[in-house]
Amino acid sequence: MLGSGAQHEERAEQVGRLLAERGCVLVCGGGNEVMAAAARGAKSAGGTTIGIVPGERRRSANEWIDHEIVTGIGHGRNLAVAASGDAAIAVGGSWGTLAEIAFAARLGRPLVILEPGLEVDGIPRASSPEEAVELILRELGDESDT
Amino acid sequence: MLGSGAQHEERAEQVGRLLAERGCVLVCGGGNEVMAAAARGAKSAGGTTIGIVPGERRRSANEWIDHEIVTGIGHGRNLAVAASGDAAIAVGGSWGTLAEIAFAARLGRPLVILEPGLEVDGIPRASSPEEAVELILRELGDESDT
Amino acid sequence: MLGSGAQHEERAEQVGRLLAERGCVLVCGGGNEVMAAAARGAKSAGGTTIGIVPGERRRSANEWIDHEIVTGIGHGRNLAVAASGDAAIAVGGSWGTLAEIAFAARLGRPLVILEPGLEVDGIPRASSPEEAVELILRELGDESDT
Amino acid sequence: MLGSGAQHEERAEQVGRLLAERGCVLVCGGGNEVMAAAARGAKSAGGTTIGIVPGERRRSANEWIDHEIVTGIGHGRNLAVAASGDAAIAVGGSWGTLAEIAFAARLGRPLVILEPGLEVDGIPRASSPEEAVELILRELGDESDT
Repeated sequence: MLGSGAQHEERAEQVGRLLAERGCVLVCGGGNEVMAAAARGAKSAGGTTIGIVPGERRRSANEWIDHEIVTGIGHGRNLAVAASGDAAIAVGGSWGTLAEIAFAARLGRPLVILEPGLEVDGIPRASSPEEAVELILRELGDESDT
Repeated sequence: MLGSGAQHEERAEQVGRLLAERGCVLVCGGGNEVMAAAARGAKSAGGTTIGIVPGERRRSANEWIDHEIVTGIGHGRNLAVAASGDAAIAVGGSWGTLAEIAFAARLGRPLVILEPGLEVDGIPRASSPEEAVELILRELGDESDT
Repeated sequence: MLGSGAQHEERAEQVGRLLAERGCVLVCGGGNEVMAAAARGAKSAGGTTIGIVPGERRRSANEWIDHEIVTGIGHGRNLAVAASGDAAIAVGGSWGTLAEIAFAARLGRPLVILEPGLEVDGIPRASSPEEAVELILRELGDESDT
Repeated sequence: MLGSGAQHEERAEQVGRLLAERGCVLVCGGGNEVMAAAARGAKSAGGTTIGIVPGERRRSANEWIDHEIVTGIGHGRNLAVAASGDAAIAVGGSWGTLAEIAFAARLGRPLVILEPGLEVDGIPRASSPEEAVELILRELGDESDT
C-alpha cells in the first residue's frame, strides 16, 4: 500500500521537523511535494535545508531550501541526494525515491522506508516518522562508536 | 524470490541471444555477472553489444562488449544504461538493477522484470526470456505503429 | 603566466574572505589547495561554505567546508560546481578549473578569471581578488535590476 | 584565431574520414555542426560512429550516428565523450569542446587541438586533419608498445 500524496507530505513534514530538532541538516531533491514538505518541516524547527536539483538554472528549488545545489545532470541527481546524506529516510512512492533507495543501499548508507511506502526487499521499514528518525540516528550512533 | 546468481546469468545469456537474433543491439553496464552473460549471449548470435561502464579507464568492460562507453560518473551510469535502450529487460537482483528499473520507468521506457527478479510495484513481469523479449518487442512495435 | 600554487592559494583565500564579507555563500569543489584556501578564507570572515566532492564517501571534504555535497559522479562534479554558483571566480590552473570555466560560460554565469590564471578567449580577467569580487557582484547586481 | 563554423565542419569531416580509414571508431557528442560533420566523414569511409547525447530521449542524435548513447546528464556528457575515446582530437571552438579538452587532459588521454582551434596552454596542436590523426595514432602506438 503506497498511500496518498497528502499522507506522504504530512509524514515528510514531520520527518523534516524531527530531524531538525535533533540537529540534522536536511538534504533532499529540492523539488515539490514530499521534498518541499520535508524542507518546510525542517525550517519550522529552525533547521538547515539543502536541495539538490536536477536542472541547470538557479532559483528552481522550493522556497524552504537554504542552499540550492544545481547539478545539471537531470535524474543523475538522485545519486547525489542519496550520497550526500549520512543516512536516508525514504518517503513517498515516486520513481526518483526508488532510485535514491537503490543508491543509498548500494553505498551502504543507513536507510529506512517510512510506511506507507515503496516495498523493497531487504530495506527496514518504520511505521511512524518518530520511529524512522530514531532508527537511523541509532544506526549512525552505532557507527560512530566503532 | 530472487533466484541464484547462476540462474540469473543463464537467463541473461538467453535474453542476450534472443535480442541479437531479433536484430537488437544489446546495451548493458559492461561489467561482470549478468552483464557479461547478456553480452556473451548476444555475441553468440552475432549481435552487437554496448557496455556503459562507471569508471574512467578504457578496457574495463567484459570481453563480450564491442563498444565501451566510459562515463566516469560512477553509479550515475545506471541512468545512461536505462536511457540508452529503446526498452529494458531487468535481470537479477543488484541495487544497480533496481536503480535502472527506477530510471527506465521514470523515462517511460517499455520495461519488464524477468522472473525470478526484483519485486517492483507496477512493473510487468515475464516468466521466461522468450516471454520477456516478446513483451518488449510488442510494446516497441505498438509504439512505432502510432 | 600561470603563477605558483602558493600564489593561487593566497589569492583564493582572499577571494573567499571577500565573498564572505559581502554576504555570499562560497561554493567550491571541497578539495585541497585552492579549494581549501578559498573555504578557509570564507570561514575566517564568518561565511558559509559548500563543497561539492567527486567521490562517494562522506567526510572527504576539507576541514573548512560546512556542507559537503557528495556527488558520486567524479569529474562530472565540475558541472555542479559551476552550475550551483550565481557567478564564478576562477583561481588557479588545474584541468578541473578549466572544465568549470567551460561550464560556467556555457551556462551563462557571470565569470571572471583571476590573474595569474588560465588563458581562455572571451572570459574577462581581474588583476586582484578585490577586482574579481567587485566585477562579479556588479554583474549580478545588474542582472537583478532587469 | 578560431576560424569559422564552416571551416571547422570541413576539417571535422576530414578527421572523421581519416579516422575511419585507419579503422578507428568515432566517438562524439552526437549533435549538429562539427559533431555531425565528423560522423558524416566517418560514415563516408565506412566507419562506425557513436554519439553520446545530453538529453533523455532516443533518436536525438544526428543521422550519421550508428549507436546513440542517451546519458540524461546534460553537459555532464562531455566527460563521457572525453573518457570514452582512446584519444581526442578537438575541433571547433564551443564551450563543450573546451570542457572535453579539460577532461581528456585530466584523464591523461592523448589529445591534440586542430587549428584553427581553442588556445589551451600545454596541449599540442596540429595544422591539418592529417597531422592531427597521425599525431594521436603515433601516441597510441607508443602507448601500446610499452
